[in-house]
Amino acid sequence: MSSLEFFRLQTREEVLAHYGRFPPVETEKVDLLAAWGRTPAEPITAPEAAPGFFRATMDGYAVRARDTFGAGAGAPAYLNIIGEVPMGEAPGQAIGPEESMRVATGAMLPPGADAVVMLEYTAEHPDQTLEVRRPVAQGENTLQPGEDVMPGEVVCPAGVPLRPQDLGLLAALGITQVRVYRRPRVAVFSSGDEIVPLEAQPGPGQVRDSNAWMAAAQVAAWGGVPLLKGIVPDDFEALKTALTAALNEADLVLVSGGSSVGVRDLTLTAIQALPGAEILVHGVAMRPGKPTILAALAHGPKPLVGLPGHPASAAVVMEVLGRPLMERLAGLAPAPPWVGRVTAYLSRNLAGASGREDYVRVKLRREGDTLWADPVLGPSGLLSPMVKSNGLVMIPLGVEGLLRGEEVNVRLFGS
Amino acid sequence: MSSLEFFRLQTREEVLAHYGRFPPVETEKVDLLAAWGRTPAEPITAPEAAPGFFRATMDGYAVRARDTFGAGAGAPAYLNIIGEVPMGEAPGQAIGPEESMRVATGAMLPPGADAVVMLEYTAEHPDQTLEVRRPVAQGENTLQPGEDVMPGEVVCPAGVPLRPQDLGLLAALGITQVRVYRRPRVAVFSSGDEIVPLEAQPGPGQVRDSNAWMAAAQVAAWGGVPLLKGIVPDDFEALKTALTAALNEADLVLVSGGSSVGVRDLTLTAIQALPGAEILVHGVAMRPGKPTILAALAHGPKPLVGLPGHPASAAVVMEVLGRPLMERLAGLAPAPPWVGRVTAYLSRNLAGASGREDYVRVKLRREGDTLWADPVLGPSGLLSPMVKSNGLVMIPLGVEGLLRGEEVNVRLFGS
Repeated sequence: MSSLEFFRLQTREEVLAHYGRFPPVETEKVDLLAAWGRTPAEPITAPEAAPGFFRATMDGYAVRARDTFGAGAGAPAYLNIIGEVPMGEAPGQAIGPEESMRVATGAMLPPGADAVVMLEYTAEHPDQTLEVRRPVAQGENTLQPGEDVMPGEVVCPAGVPLRPQDLGLLAALGITQVRVYRRPRVAVFSSGDEIVPLEAQPGPGQVRDSNAWMAAAQVAAWGGVPLLKGIVPDDFEALKTALTAALNEADLVLVSGGSSVGVRDLTLTAIQALPGAEILVHGVAMRPGKPTILAALAHGPKPLVGLPGHPASAAVVMEVLGRPLMERLAGLAPAPPWVGRVTAYLSRNLAGASGREDYVRVKLRREGDTLWADPVLGPSGLLSPMVKSNGLVMIPLGVEGLLRGEEVNVRLFGS
Repeated sequence: MSSLEFFRLQTREEVLAHYGRFPPVETEKVDLLAAWGRTPAEPITAPEAAPGFFRATMDGYAVRARDTFGAGAGAPAYLNIIGEVPMGEAPGQAIGPEESMRVATGAMLPPGADAVVMLEYTAEHPDQTLEVRRPVAQGENTLQPGEDVMPGEVVCPAGVPLRPQDLGLLAALGITQVRVYRRPRVAVFSSGDEIVPLEAQPGPGQVRDSNAWMAAAQVAAWGGVPLLKGIVPDDFEALKTALTAALNEADLVLVSGGSSVGVRDLTLTAIQALPGAEILVHGVAMRPGKPTILAALAHGPKPLVGLPGHPASAAVVMEVLGRPLMERLAGLAPAPPWVGRVTAYLSRNLAGASGREDYVRVKLRREGDTLWADPVLGPSGLLSPMVKSNGLVMIPLGVEGLLRGEEVNVRLFGS
């Protein structure tokens, strides 16, 4: 009989509630070019105003708006052109009443000017007189200093990964470095006497190490640094030594466990023997994914997750439980509810798993304006149903099943 | 008067239709660990079957299913236990009628066995007799060789980036390297006499180079390698020399242009003077984004895109026109329509741009079960409205506007 039987299955919410005890990783400063997709560890504030000066947003003429009031095609206003503002330089002079200066988009407005008349509503006469055929309002076709950002304003909150437009704004503000959370380092182990390395030709009864590769790619997809630690034999001392070493190097340890009861028990015993070990979860009320282990270990504390051995179970546990743990360690604020999800209609009835949250793989299919979610069934020992699917549909605990035609929320598999 | 006037504005569809002439980049072989997110250049087929042998998917006993027929709690079947199959090894013997062997999940079934009885429906008696309290069907709790994948089957199509589960399956099949498209190299230039580098303190009338940083981050987000080429002065020869050098190194050249007519004309003249230059597009019927240039140049041909100078215009053009061009060069198949999009309800009326496809920034807001898209207005010269937004809503050409409460498809900004 397995020691699994002595543990109560915990719900997903109960598992997630344990994550609060694990602190985020340290922070580091990175150059702006390396900051895309990284997570600010503190709110970023503007050190100065943007724009920094009163600018033209159109090609045309800097004017005093009041000098154009009443101007029209039939009754143009006439102004003196006293010069041109060179790009990237301060205007050489101010304008007075009934005066104007040529400006290109982005040029600084001369003192005295408060608007720009667009080129297409003007004509230059040979005597340097400007004909203006349309009035402009004060401020028209210009940007005021600080109109984009005021000094001291928070431009990027902590915990939200930086997007291209964020980098654009940071560059405009002259911010060359950003303090971000370091990428979590995640050690990935495989255990099981039947597992051989990727390069090996499996002998009778042997299989290649596929789950560790899948988990490592998931870690990379979620912004972590996977450390593939290879296969540890079904041996207590070897397992304990390997896990101890990994805990010194990694922020999270994943053990892609053998699927058999014997191997699971051995893994649990080895984890319990680690410094400061506390088993928080041993069995989760979800299908697939029941034989999942979560432990807190010394130094941090740092989390260790024992993944189920079946490939589909390991993938679902990583998606549903591993990803939020990675996000916690990486200092990420919760993602908005519309990210990585899509609403579709279920194409057939689905029975739920009694007493467990049930995760069903689905393939999405568009038919006219309707998006259908086709369940992709198959035992959790298979990899190809995961490969043929686009995402997961969850049947909540206590729900008997979902009906054909029901609207479902699909959690998309990231690329 | 700008030379822009001599060109007819092209629609988005017309612009995209030009992309067919640009060939995808070359391919390269990468190790499996580096293959996550990369795009296979050819379909990947299974070199062997998975699983490779007849396996148990549960802990229990390998049996001949017919020996358990009719078994029940009240009338168990009794079998002889003749041994155990060690993990990762071939079974030492076959089973005959009324015989069984202990197996763990993942173990190879012995010849003669055709099913596995789960541990929980059995009891072992001291005389090595197995009590079976439930019948199993042929094949139950087992996987047949090739049940996951048959030899020669296409497991990953060309053109679709590899996901974690794909890597898991490739690992299981012993595929250690994958032929993928090389990441497109994209040279990014800024032009404009008012532009100063990120590190500089702008003088009067000067601004920092923000668009190039935004475009470079977009390139990185879409799987390309950005090459930040700095600022070229508003000088024909300097611009021509810099662009020629970039074309030898990059697969795509982006010129984040000055916004003024003079700079735009200069850029166009320099592009026209490049080897084999053909201007395909000069002006697009979209708002923002009208002053966009697309050219085909010698060697490939290779594409060059002249981006508008206003930050919001450059960002929208990159998203709507630059991204599909990147995807073409990167060998990507069209993404499914549900990726990176979300349906929301517009929170206020929006007027369209007459004669142009109109792209409006929106911020998403959840209110109960309803997702609202709040338009974020502001001139295209500003960066902060892009930073405050989650995505874009498009008002099609020829549509006068969208009404409050209308369902809209939001193109999400990627992180």
